[in-house]
Amino acid sequence: MSELEWIAVDWGTSRMRLWALDSRGSVIDSQSSDTGMAKLARDEFEPTLIDLIEPWVSDATHPVPVIACGMVGARQGWQEMPYEAVPCRPSIKFSRVETQSRKIDVRICWGLKQLDPADVMRGEETQIAGLLGSYADYAGVVCLPGTHCKWARLDQGAVTEFQSYMTGEIFYLLSNNSVLRFSIDQHDWSDDQFDAAVHEALNTPEKITGRLFGLRAQSLVNDSPVGGNGARLSGYLIGLELASTRSYWESNEVSIIGASALAGHYHRALSLVGKTAQLLDTQQMTLAGLTAAYNAYKDQNNV
Amino acid sequence: MSELEWIAVDWGTSRMRLWALDSRGSVIDSQSSDTGMAKLARDEFEPTLIDLIEPWVSDATHPVPVIACGMVGARQGWQEMPYEAVPCRPSIKFSRVETQSRKIDVRICWGLKQLDPADVMRGEETQIAGLLGSYADYAGVVCLPGTHCKWARLDQGAVTEFQSYMTGEIFYLLSNNSVLRFSIDQHDWSDDQFDAAVHEALNTPEKITGRLFGLRAQSLVNDSPVGGNGARLSGYLIGLELASTRSYWESNEVSIIGASALAGHYHRALSLVGKTAQLLDTQQMTLAGLTAAYNAYKDQNNV
Repeated sequence: MSELEWIAVDWGTSRMRLWALDSRGSVIDSQSSDTGMAKLARDEFEPTLIDLIEPWVSDATHPVPVIACGMVGARQGWQEMPYEAVPCRPSIKFSRVETQSRKIDVRICWGLKQLDPADVMRGEETQIAGLLGSYADYAGVVCLPGTHCKWARLDQGAVTEFQSYMTGEIFYLLSNNSVLRFSIDQHDWSDDQFDAAVHEALNTPEKITGRLFGLRAQSLVNDSPVGGNGARLSGYLIGLELASTRSYWESNEVSIIGASALAGHYHRALSLVGKTAQLLDTQQMTLAGLTAAYNAYKDQNNV
Repeated sequence: MSELEWIAVDWGTSRMRLWALDSRGSVIDSQSSDTGMAKLARDEFEPTLIDLIEPWVSDATHPVPVIACGMVGARQGWQEMPYEAVPCRPSIKFSRVETQSRKIDVRICWGLKQLDPADVMRGEETQIAGLLGSYADYAGVVCLPGTHCKWARLDQGAVTEFQSYMTGEIFYLLSNNSVLRFSIDQHDWSDDQFDAAVHEALNTPEKITGRLFGLRAQSLVNDSPVGGNGARLSGYLIGLELASTRSYWESNEVSIIGASALAGHYHRALSLVGKTAQLLDTQQMTLAGLTAAYNAYKDQNNV
């Protein structure tokens, strides 16, 4: 087995993923854990990390660089990292975190912010850096579906503008906490219902809150099963987002970073408006972005 | 004190309100309770009612008519009542509920439904009947703010069409259960922020889910206090509803039934688009509607 040179960590709100890499940037080992930022108090981050990587660093003779991105750098995380203002190249900035252990040298990536209209991202900037690391002269738009979906414009290696949408969180709240929970079976997917809902939302986006109640009313009026209502809800919300992001996707190349079913829904919705987006894997892009950050670290530290 | 002739009950999801009335329709006594539909199992409705009205019916020599409206007639309520399809006159239909007690003769009002687009209401139809009882030749639109705000068209004493919006429930979920809860102080109201948000939502309603995240981002980017964000959230959501209901309010007389701060927000939002709505009190309209139902009861029973 080749020798460990550094460790990459994607440390999100609910989960974390870790990679051990050698001097050529090849993955020696990897693991994941559900010890996300939201589950840890400030003084639990270091012991949690050490616990997980102990087998990797046990033989280390000098501090192993650990490059982390994501909500670990939020105010509620291990240590709050600044947001760099766009336009800028993403994810080549990070800051050192003091540790008790001398086996590791931890750096956490900064987020990105936009002053007007106000917006922030933390974690996605590293995925975007991964896209730019893989396609250096990419000029176009990237969509990062999730709890708070991000759309960003990229030009000459920089993020020039971005916008976040609460689509994912609103879907979750409506499906689980609203009156619609009685009318939605999330496992009963229907492409036809999804497609129809995307079109309706794109055509008359202002009707959204009325359409949502309609999902409940339909099942009461017809005393009918709730087939496809989850697909319809998803279509309404993604269609609404496409109505708002038209200037992003209409005349630009679009890449979607995401491996989940959700990324597939965005891909399908865009295809309905004649747009073929490139689907990129989240983990691959995250690791590529952390690698870009590690290369910057090496430059700074003359490694 | 004049003699009890009948009892009116507004029995909603979370609260109930009861009135004792004499033969001239004057209120002898009234009370309210937090024993709403959601807190009661099916077999608890009758004992709960009897407990509350015992002092009123203790001397009754024959069954006292009790006319009830609201979620008490829902599937999860005392006994499920049908929905009558619009177009129709509201709240002159009700059905008998069997009781153990021989001191009461209980009727629960039906709801209203619309087949296409599918919609339902339960409780608001009685308030609308109250409006029509008070203004018999009312031709125009009525708005009933609440968890699921209703807009209805009234013509020649009938409801011809209506539409429900999840505005109130979405406001609640976003303020209390979403990431926005960190950025919203509901007690820090600002008319200016509300007005600006209504205008923005009316002009570009499709941007709603991006604007919502902006409330969070603004406080992170500026590290600023959250002044007026509750007003802004309310303005965005009510403005979005006005964008969708334009065909209702633009060329019609508008009445708002509601006494709460929420009704005031709708009134203010409509005034921003040059519309002066009539504000009517919910309890007055409910009691007037239950009185119309009681008059129909008397006709049917030759009282």
